[in-house]
Amino acid sequence: MLSFDMDYAGVRLYFGEFSVKKLEPHLRGFSSVALATSKSAARVSGALKDVTEVLEKRSVSYEIYDRFTPNPTIDETVEFARLAWERGAQAIIAIGGGSVIDAAKVAAIAKLNGNKVADVVYGRSEVSTGVPVFAVNLTHGTGTEVDRYSVISDPEHKEKRGMVSLYPTASADDPRYLTTLPKDQTIYTALDAFYHSYEAATRLSSSPYIEMLSREAVSKIRDWLPRSLADLKGLEPRYWLLYASMVAGVAIDMAGTHVIHTLEHVASGINPKLIHGAGLAMLGPRSAYYTHKLSPVKSAAVLSLFDSTIRPTADDAEHAEKALRQFQQKVGFDQHLSDYGFGKDDVPSMVEYVVKNKALPGPDLVPITEDMVRDIFVKSL
Amino acid sequence: MLSFDMDYAGVRLYFGEFSVKKLEPHLRGFSSVALATSKSAARVSGALKDVTEVLEKRSVSYEIYDRFTPNPTIDETVEFARLAWERGAQAIIAIGGGSVIDAAKVAAIAKLNGNKVADVVYGRSEVSTGVPVFAVNLTHGTGTEVDRYSVISDPEHKEKRGMVSLYPTASADDPRYLTTLPKDQTIYTALDAFYHSYEAATRLSSSPYIEMLSREAVSKIRDWLPRSLADLKGLEPRYWLLYASMVAGVAIDMAGTHVIHTLEHVASGINPKLIHGAGLAMLGPRSAYYTHKLSPVKSAAVLSLFDSTIRPTADDAEHAEKALRQFQQKVGFDQHLSDYGFGKDDVPSMVEYVVKNKALPGPDLVPITEDMVRDIFVKSL
Repeated sequence: MLSFDMDYAGVRLYFGEFSVKKLEPHLRGFSSVALATSKSAARVSGALKDVTEVLEKRSVSYEIYDRFTPNPTIDETVEFARLAWERGAQAIIAIGGGSVIDAAKVAAIAKLNGNKVADVVYGRSEVSTGVPVFAVNLTHGTGTEVDRYSVISDPEHKEKRGMVSLYPTASADDPRYLTTLPKDQTIYTALDAFYHSYEAATRLSSSPYIEMLSREAVSKIRDWLPRSLADLKGLEPRYWLLYASMVAGVAIDMAGTHVIHTLEHVASGINPKLIHGAGLAMLGPRSAYYTHKLSPVKSAAVLSLFDSTIRPTADDAEHAEKALRQFQQKVGFDQHLSDYGFGKDDVPSMVEYVVKNKALPGPDLVPITEDMVRDIFVKSL
Repeated sequence: MLSFDMDYAGVRLYFGEFSVKKLEPHLRGFSSVALATSKSAARVSGALKDVTEVLEKRSVSYEIYDRFTPNPTIDETVEFARLAWERGAQAIIAIGGGSVIDAAKVAAIAKLNGNKVADVVYGRSEVSTGVPVFAVNLTHGTGTEVDRYSVISDPEHKEKRGMVSLYPTASADDPRYLTTLPKDQTIYTALDAFYHSYEAATRLSSSPYIEMLSREAVSKIRDWLPRSLADLKGLEPRYWLLYASMVAGVAIDMAGTHVIHTLEHVASGINPKLIHGAGLAMLGPRSAYYTHKLSPVKSAAVLSLFDSTIRPTADDAEHAEKALRQFQQKVGFDQHLSDYGFGKDDVPSMVEYVVKNKALPGPDLVPITEDMVRDIFVKSL
């Protein structure tokens, strides 16, 4: 498996085994950094040890904050940022999945705007740059190690918000760390990367270039997710799933997501226990039905990788939905919103939320209607 | 055919019909710009008229310099730069193929380093930024509208040098302008884009990401070059060839080229009449023989698009060379260095030049030897 370096949009990405070591030259000039992690993944994967070795070699002091949760909140981010800046950190090394890296990006901006984390989350911050963030990625889902986005929860207002934060300065994607990812996380994060690809490719503003990225990521997920599930500790499947999620990260950075991410953020805003990738996969197949109906050529360009008989026509939308559902079942995913306590009674308020926040349809999005949103929620229960 | 916008490495690219109009907002704040073009292409294609309309709408004054030649020289660049800065130009709009855009990028840097064009060309310039360059691309070859490179000739020293100059600020790729490209230029420039793809993908530092870009570009060239030749005025084939050359431009920007470009620059440094794309295509098949021998997996990933029976093994190098030669013959290319006056007597000095300039093998290049270089030149006569 080839190690490689890549520049994308100001991010220097090191991909491959032992890539954390390549972050070392980037630490030149720093005497103190803050490490952002969650409770266990950074330790279990071995990433924390690798990072601290590099820091010790360079005599950079560090403070570890390990209280980030899977849906990181404004409060956690404020707490981390306060600790980091009190101790004089000059940069952040985020070791974790999407949540940790996302929160680190927001904290990096907060350093320059007087720690007003909520202002960043709600798009009110006057400052949009931050101190450097170095990302050591521990999942093959979000692509946040190469993109400019963060997703942060505001439990007080039952909101989960996606926003532009900033690009990491440099990132490491090392497939070794993925071999300790449990089976359910393997499925959820790979499906997250799938939905990034599918949504980016079916935006109205998509292009042949985005379609290329999307097909690349989806074909690797299709081929390697089943192999990874059959051999969770296998390095090669992890390499390709990590590659796919990185490519999908570039795709969403260039093109964005749409209905599936919007609806998932509504659902997991209400129930923070809902894991992002799982929520997407619950809402995805029915959303794909409408997406295919409204944008059949772009939808088929991606979904035909699962079933080559899917036609690029609106009347094949059911076929598209079914193929996607079958793929998810094949990799062991068959969950529903009702498994997380959602019922028919919750649908009206979820639809209302979407309408009130003018989340659909954006000028550049597939023109999903209120009725379609309602149907997607109902069919995903 | 979809129009789309794309950001790559600081370049804002507008792709599709009438995309020049989208450059208008970028001209805000400028009162005077310099237009760089060659003798006829900008006029014949209609691009010059479209650009001047945008400028007149914005009341931006402009000066046209139209003396750039196919292999632009240091002297031409100096002449253009002097004219531009004497007349108070604040930016450059380069309307042309690779040569014009390449020279404009160098002139843009020269504005800030006291017009020392040769210093930029020989990598001695202390300044590496420049005034904004807007590129209106008229060929589907170089990819210079999205990359950071320039190639400039120094006839005095019989040198043709490739160098890092700068990225355009914004570029327009409009397939309408390509429909006036003559048949021979259609072939040469499309083959240039092919060799960008093949060389980027076969660098030692290449990656699955570069392979993806390369395969995308090559599959479009394979499918659409024959159709474009059968219908030179057809817009759709031009759209895809232009797309392919843009994607190949991203590939070389990320990964670079190697032996074929190196040897072509030597040959066209000696005989400036040799057109870049034609030179590559003369030297390409035999170079591919060695490239395949030394890097069979990466080479086969690209060349198998021409012939799916090519194996990723060193012993199939002859097959690879043959497949490439056959593709070139199929699209009407069957020229040799001897058609441009090169003979066996020229080979030793060309080899010597390569060796003297330590052009091969670089640390990151396929380990081509002096003997291989000699054989490539001889077999390309």
